[in-house]
Amino acid sequence: MSRTRVRVTVRLKPAILDPQGRSVQATLHRLGHDGAENVRVGKVIEFTRPGPPDEAAHAAVRRMAEEVLANPVLEDVEIDLREAPDAPEG
Amino acid sequence: MSRTRVRVTVRLKPAILDPQGRSVQATLHRLGHDGAENVRVGKVIEFTRPGPPDEAAHAAVRRMAEEVLANPVLEDVEIDLREAPDAPEG
Repeated sequence: MSRTRVRVTVRLKPAILDPQGRSVQATLHRLGHDGAENVRVGKVIEFTRPGPPDEAAHAAVRRMAEEVLANPVLEDVEIDLREAPDAPEG
Repeated sequence: MSRTRVRVTVRLKPAILDPQGRSVQATLHRLGHDGAENVRVGKVIEFTRPGPPDEAAHAAVRRMAEEVLANPVLEDVEIDLREAPDAPEG
């Protein structure tokens, strides 16, 4: 049976201030890693699910993302689906 | 002057338990989103830096990742570099 490898990336919307990103940027510079600008920190939620990476899978994952994984008011969601090996990974 | 769009994805190593992923998985199932297995939660740190996305940029970002962005004992790092538009994004 086919399985799908799901990657959901959740980022703060561009207009939302990202204090965690600011803090990471300041730390990078303080430790001599120059040049990083506009640092933003997001989340990546990865899992497998049964079935192929088709339209229905995309719709189901979009519902998961909007209802559980992200805050649609503050965050944007990017969904990436790939065919996975037959056996679950873990 | 060319600029590079950097994406660093930080994930717990596969052998490390991920309680946050377990909790997300349980919540998905509780709310009727069936089928998600082996849920893992990671971080994505994104920024721009001056210069092209070449070997030197990759080496510099690898040092940032290992010294600041990740814990190399517990976490794996994936680095993705792309050519960015000339103007900084934000």
